[in-house]
Amino acid sequence: MINGVLCDLSGVLYVGDQPVAEAREAVISLAAAGLPIRFMTNTTRKSKREILSKLAGMGLDVADEDLFTPAVAARTHVKEQGLVPHLLIHPNLESELGDLAGSNPDAVLLGDAGPAFSYANLNHAFRILIGGAPLLAMGMNRYFRENGGLSLDMGPFVRALEYAADVQAIVLGKPAPTFYRAAVESLGLEPHEVAMVGDDYEADVDGALAAGLQAILVRTGKYRPGDEGRIRHHGATVCDNIGAAADLIL
Amino acid sequence: MINGVLCDLSGVLYVGDQPVAEAREAVISLAAAGLPIRFMTNTTRKSKREILSKLAGMGLDVADEDLFTPAVAARTHVKEQGLVPHLLIHPNLESELGDLAGSNPDAVLLGDAGPAFSYANLNHAFRILIGGAPLLAMGMNRYFRENGGLSLDMGPFVRALEYAADVQAIVLGKPAPTFYRAAVESLGLEPHEVAMVGDDYEADVDGALAAGLQAILVRTGKYRPGDEGRIRHHGATVCDNIGAAADLIL
Repeated sequence: MINGVLCDLSGVLYVGDQPVAEAREAVISLAAAGLPIRFMTNTTRKSKREILSKLAGMGLDVADEDLFTPAVAARTHVKEQGLVPHLLIHPNLESELGDLAGSNPDAVLLGDAGPAFSYANLNHAFRILIGGAPLLAMGMNRYFRENGGLSLDMGPFVRALEYAADVQAIVLGKPAPTFYRAAVESLGLEPHEVAMVGDDYEADVDGALAAGLQAILVRTGKYRPGDEGRIRHHGATVCDNIGAAADLIL
Repeated sequence: MINGVLCDLSGVLYVGDQPVAEAREAVISLAAAGLPIRFMTNTTRKSKREILSKLAGMGLDVADEDLFTPAVAARTHVKEQGLVPHLLIHPNLESELGDLAGSNPDAVLLGDAGPAFSYANLNHAFRILIGGAPLLAMGMNRYFRENGGLSLDMGPFVRALEYAADVQAIVLGKPAPTFYRAAVESLGLEPHEVAMVGDDYEADVDGALAAGLQAILVRTGKYRPGDEGRIRHHGATVCDNIGAAADLIL
């Protein structure tokens, strides 16, 4: 029994700049059937506004409050804890998170900084961490698929800094249970009534199952043969794409 | 009973461009007492020739065959396995290892590339690894101390690529037992007769103890209070510096 859906974006609705063929119809048919949907991404290379505009360009009008991003979760966490983070993030997120930073940082906040993951920037973050500051990570994703193939996401750089400073990161995006909880609560449902659809066997599938949700792995985006076998929890379903997932849910 | 000594370089004999005050006298007094010494570094930011010249500049004339570097171990491994590696190394090592590379790589060889650890270079290496190529690492050191403070060594970047491609690196420098074995064999001694002196509680101390050697941690270089407690094996000795270590050995 599925009464609500959480839908990943990159790799499920689009790959790089290319929409997944079945995506628009699938989302529209779920909505038409009265199933509430929330969108949950770990993308931290684009601001929330840019993501919403990309979805609109595909013919999907998503309300601001229906899109859950790690940047929003990061702002909540930083404010709750009263932290002043050093930011190692993509330039596109500066407009959304830049005001959190200060000249005397007591934390490091990491996103998928892409080319900003330079040796100098990582070394700067390391020196703050070795002084005892906590490491906040907007995700732990290993890689994603874009136009030119698979590319490194933020997870590897979180691991690098964890190892260098001998610390463990606090993860704020998927697969953090708190991140899943926020989206499930906004649906007014219990976790077991909600299905997460994603192309990441860890952040989407294992993360959702660990948080008590149902989970569907799609064979698009970064999916690689054998990913089914890498899921640690029991109970995942596998579908060829978001269209097949919507059919199954309905 | 110590009949031979393996001596780490950076952090023990010098820190950045600054010799450790006690270093020259300590090495000379060990040699004068008839104790054979080999030098074992995980530095991969300088060629063997540059390292020997740096030691000579401190008044320490070390023979080429008495200096064990990960670059030499890497060449041996790559040739034995018949591999053609993609190199992600410091420009200073190009003269020493550049001839090993080819246009159709079937392995990735990583050194402390320093500023060459760019997002683009790491992504390039990742794409070769995700295709199934083995990852060869010249060390796993977390950081080192140079003139400006602690700086990231190669270990964090090895961890990043291991996590991204879900592989485990083959380590060729310290703490690899094969690397220790080569140096001990050159002394014509048994491991338990040989003491390793280093400032790295993992690569130098745990590595040597795991390989059956004795080990002395010095409180210079990258040493940080509490490092004694991070050693996993029993039996390490701690000295303030190489001078105190030489006194102890003699």
